[in-house]
Amino acid sequence: MTAADTVAGQAATGADDLSALWQPRSVAVVGASDNPAKWGYWLASGALSGRDRRAVHLVNHRGGRVCGVPAARSLREVGEPVDLTAVVVPATAVGETVTGALDLGSRAVLVITDGVQRLPGGPALLRDLARRARAAGARLLGPSSLGIVDSAQELRLAWGHFAPGPVAIVTQSGQVGSELAHLLHRHGSGVSRFASVGVQADVTSEELLAGLAAHPGTTAVICYLEGVRDAAGFLSAARALREAGKPLVVLAAGDSAAGSAAARSHTGALTGSMDVLDAACRAAGAVRARTPAEAAALAHTLAAGVRPRGDRIVIVSDSGGQGALAADVATAAGLRVTPLGSGTRARLAETLPAVPGNPVDLAGAGEQDLSSYAAVAEAVAPEAGAVVLTGYFGRFGVDSPGLREAECAVAHRLTRLARTVPVVVHSMAEDGPAVDVLVRGGIPVFADVETTLRAVAGCVRWERAVARDVPTPDPVGEGERCSYLAARDMLREAGIPVPEAGTARSADEAVALAASWPGATVLKADLDHKTEAGGVVLGLRTAGEVAAAHRDLTARLGLDSVVVERMDERAGVVEVLVGLRHDPVFGRVVVVSSGGVEAELWRDTVLELAPVDEAEATAMLARLRGHPRLLGWRGAPGVDIPALARAIAAVSRMPVATCEINPLRAGADGVLAVDALVFRGHSEEEPA
Amino acid sequence: MTAADTVAGQAATGADDLSALWQPRSVAVVGASDNPAKWGYWLASGALSGRDRRAVHLVNHRGGRVCGVPAARSLREVGEPVDLTAVVVPATAVGETVTGALDLGSRAVLVITDGVQRLPGGPALLRDLARRARAAGARLLGPSSLGIVDSAQELRLAWGHFAPGPVAIVTQSGQVGSELAHLLHRHGSGVSRFASVGVQADVTSEELLAGLAAHPGTTAVICYLEGVRDAAGFLSAARALREAGKPLVVLAAGDSAAGSAAARSHTGALTGSMDVLDAACRAAGAVRARTPAEAAALAHTLAAGVRPRGDRIVIVSDSGGQGALAADVATAAGLRVTPLGSGTRARLAETLPAVPGNPVDLAGAGEQDLSSYAAVAEAVAPEAGAVVLTGYFGRFGVDSPGLREAECAVAHRLTRLARTVPVVVHSMAEDGPAVDVLVRGGIPVFADVETTLRAVAGCVRWERAVARDVPTPDPVGEGERCSYLAARDMLREAGIPVPEAGTARSADEAVALAASWPGATVLKADLDHKTEAGGVVLGLRTAGEVAAAHRDLTARLGLDSVVVERMDERAGVVEVLVGLRHDPVFGRVVVVSSGGVEAELWRDTVLELAPVDEAEATAMLARLRGHPRLLGWRGAPGVDIPALARAIAAVSRMPVATCEINPLRAGADGVLAVDALVFRGHSEEEPA
Repeated sequence: MTAADTVAGQAATGADDLSALWQPRSVAVVGASDNPAKWGYWLASGALSGRDRRAVHLVNHRGGRVCGVPAARSLREVGEPVDLTAVVVPATAVGETVTGALDLGSRAVLVITDGVQRLPGGPALLRDLARRARAAGARLLGPSSLGIVDSAQELRLAWGHFAPGPVAIVTQSGQVGSELAHLLHRHGSGVSRFASVGVQADVTSEELLAGLAAHPGTTAVICYLEGVRDAAGFLSAARALREAGKPLVVLAAGDSAAGSAAARSHTGALTGSMDVLDAACRAAGAVRARTPAEAAALAHTLAAGVRPRGDRIVIVSDSGGQGALAADVATAAGLRVTPLGSGTRARLAETLPAVPGNPVDLAGAGEQDLSSYAAVAEAVAPEAGAVVLTGYFGRFGVDSPGLREAECAVAHRLTRLARTVPVVVHSMAEDGPAVDVLVRGGIPVFADVETTLRAVAGCVRWERAVARDVPTPDPVGEGERCSYLAARDMLREAGIPVPEAGTARSADEAVALAASWPGATVLKADLDHKTEAGGVVLGLRTAGEVAAAHRDLTARLGLDSVVVERMDERAGVVEVLVGLRHDPVFGRVVVVSSGGVEAELWRDTVLELAPVDEAEATAMLARLRGHPRLLGWRGAPGVDIPALARAIAAVSRMPVATCEINPLRAGADGVLAVDALVFRGHSEEEPA
Repeated sequence: MTAADTVAGQAATGADDLSALWQPRSVAVVGASDNPAKWGYWLASGALSGRDRRAVHLVNHRGGRVCGVPAARSLREVGEPVDLTAVVVPATAVGETVTGALDLGSRAVLVITDGVQRLPGGPALLRDLARRARAAGARLLGPSSLGIVDSAQELRLAWGHFAPGPVAIVTQSGQVGSELAHLLHRHGSGVSRFASVGVQADVTSEELLAGLAAHPGTTAVICYLEGVRDAAGFLSAARALREAGKPLVVLAAGDSAAGSAAARSHTGALTGSMDVLDAACRAAGAVRARTPAEAAALAHTLAAGVRPRGDRIVIVSDSGGQGALAADVATAAGLRVTPLGSGTRARLAETLPAVPGNPVDLAGAGEQDLSSYAAVAEAVAPEAGAVVLTGYFGRFGVDSPGLREAECAVAHRLTRLARTVPVVVHSMAEDGPAVDVLVRGGIPVFADVETTLRAVAGCVRWERAVARDVPTPDPVGEGERCSYLAARDMLREAGIPVPEAGTARSADEAVALAASWPGATVLKADLDHKTEAGGVVLGLRTAGEVAAAHRDLTARLGLDSVVVERMDERAGVVEVLVGLRHDPVFGRVVVVSSGGVEAELWRDTVLELAPVDEAEATAMLARLRGHPRLLGWRGAPGVDIPALARAIAAVSRMPVATCEINPLRAGADGVLAVDALVFRGHSEEEPA
């Protein structure tokens, strides 16, 4: 280990010392085996591959030789201090083995063994082991970890092969991590660090992520999440990675379970935990991916330094068909494929047989003269956010060995271009000499066009993300529902306009209130789910109607009093839902949704971690599909967007568990909250 | 050539004889070359690979030996009849070469050469060559064809390698076709027939598709389209393939250009040519794919005979993470991943360490005993539309040679299961002994989970598609706009209710009309874009309001008269747009869209080739995202869906170029067309 390694290690691990995990001076594998079908073989042979760096001890209760070296019968028999102990023993022997490792002075214990948490008393055993490890100044990773790898350290303690490369993987599923590593390898990339966290008895994903910001070998990170335990830790690790210029790609499962029908508010029904994770990633400047393939391609592309200059790309193809398909896929991925400037078109027209558009179709020019590929890419580069090459290039030298040298020369020229503008390639050749030149020169090459363009689009998303500070999540449970009148008061205090209103205990009181304002009146029973209960009567225009509605509501619903409210009869009003809810992991979340009563039908919803300021609220509105209605749709006047943004920002700061204004009616002259549901909060910390 | 081949060939080609293209007795390649970087080399060496089947003549103007055989200096020098002549000469020599081929009695000419259509006089030359070929009883494929392949016939006249297999490819882009063939090969599949149609001077994609229904070696077809020339031919070919049980996968480019802002009606703006192609595919029982990768995976899966029993799949995974990701991807692809029945759960619980859900997580059981994979798949099979295996299976034997035999035995057991229920596999192993067993046994295996599940979802779409008869497309241009009153009359004649109305030349006439019905009145100027022109005044309740609106409209818009209409004031009404338009390729198209004035905002639109009957119209409504509103949303009563379906069916049969009812207001007591725009048709055939 060099001095530089040590310093980097210290910087990376911070206060909670993980240095024995990543830079152990010695390693023991307990449960080492000679059988390649066993985990003990992979751990032992992996550990031995780092023998030049550190002492490696293999332990097998039968002793003898394992993987060609003598094995101790027990940790005790090792007889010298072991920095990192890897445990691959039966579940019932894990407790004893970890104890032995701590006794031997191990400062890190990696538990591969699966099933400990399913033993009778397993969860308690794990809590105890974690506590004892901490007390001994050690840390425990696992159990059920697939292992760890640090390529620069020649530290390989995992099942499977891990090609070295610039991407770090932190994963809550060992096998998803293994698939990610495998996919990276297929793209000609590999892993800097790999950590499978297993059941996280002690060391967490968040800690491991935090350590990567300063890890010298890592230029991009993939994190596979099934859940976040420490939201503040996740957000600060993600922000640290962003500050270090190391993109974080978050892959998470659970989308299909999003949105709970049992939620008490529409806001809850409209937003699942994955939407909140999306918002958390936005707040932390990380990007989401939906599949391992997308995550691997995106991380590889980001690690290669692809930083598109905006979302407008130029596609260069040697086939009109492949170019057109690429344009469709790019557009679906959120990229823009707009026509070339006239100057560029004129320059290209001199050399290309067909009229150059975007996609630029080489239409045989590439075949006539391979250098056309590079010349065209260079010509379009000044106006391209990124140049995407799609088609046959890369196969010339594979199909026709005589073209190999010329194709490689073009590939070299493209790698030089890639220093000034991002170049990403879809090639019908999975490999071959020209593809090798491209990949070695830092140009990502993919075997299908959708992977290629989704990766470019992901890079644009990462470039555009802006990490922002949000407060440490503060878990609040949902308490009592506030009365409607109390909810109105809270909104008014927060600066959100509400209609005139009062409480009427008699029909006469209701009529008197209604007479105090012009136009129509609404009567509302102050109940949970009052609309569904038939507790809202709209559009009352005469004293007789008001009195009858009051008599009906009080009798039918058994109420002493009814809320009498002035009806908002403005024309050209757009209704939105604005809500605040508490996510159990990430805390306050502010939600905006198009359509009042129809919000759940269209599911045109945006959300962010709260609070948001007015500029952020305005940006949320711009992300709604229904945004054109706010600006003025088909001749209608636009609504007062600053007032709407102020209301959203105000809701995002309300000190309650849940607030839902539905609808908030926005017109050209301001907003009015005409219905609201508020639940007070109670701290979930108190009883604990 | 066997007698069976001949019969199959005749059956496949029908009246327009393509037998010389697919079963030539002799082949000549003009422009044969020894240089592997030249097309002439690929055509010549490909032709020679079929020498055991047929005479092969190579022609090169320099003579000598090419690919090891003597070459003639000209077609004339060949000196014997040539059934099929392949032409790979410079563009300027194509005319002369085709002429020579016809003189020599060729009944099929394949023109590979590119650029003929870009020569001065090129298009005229192509028309002339096609006419002369037809006159000589021959057919011409190309120019700019990448070539043709028929694996069973050992006919290989194309650039590139084409592994044999059960999928036919007909492509309007040679290189997209080549990519498809390459992708099929990667999945362990290949092509039965391949035809690249080039610029279609004579032989069309539609004819080539038609020939595949009876082609014995083909069990699935991919067609790459940039445009359909012969809509009736396309529809009948697709229907014939469906009847033959050979799924057709349509890949098409142009989605990103969909929807034209310049369209004269909202119906036009809401629907692009790709939406119409989608509708045509539905009418013909074909399925669309969005990318070459999706098309190849889907065709491979369909060719393997995967026919899911419904859209509910069971996912079996050896990793909780991979299972969860698969469930997300499956749900996004439109599949259902619902919990297992209690009986199955109980059976599985006996052997699995964790509680079995769907996905079923083997949670280490697979590793403990490889046969668990097969046992679990068998246990869930009775209730699965398809079983999807995702994860590590396939790599055991790759990573641990000792497990090879056991893993292959499990793979064999899975192939037996696949005879009773579709089984599709995502494996982290791209290849290896167990994957070989699966693929040879007819189980599709893919390297990423999204490809796997999109393919399964595509099979479900194909299974559910029902081909229906639609009339031969009848091109009609858009003629004159009908007056609003005339449009109302046409709707009424078609059986679609419209509000009471009349024309008022004076304010007094308007007031008198308004007095003839209860409730509010609307005044409408009978103009193009009357809403945008401020020509519609809603909600007039008093004689004074009616008179004032009449005076304002006539004065401001310079009109003699105004339409006075009773306003539809029913509560609980849902507005939809119902339209008919003529697509230049596929003819009449009927369109239904949620939201009246907001239709273009939400783009919740479905369309079908017209006409549709009431059942088909009802099915269209069910495909709208806004369908829940029609059924009754959040306590509202449902609307009269049969009346709505009758109106849609009626519009789909109207003898006009364009009809747009926007909105059609649907309530519990029926529908009312409260605004309509109709353009008469004029036949585009007449002037020609």
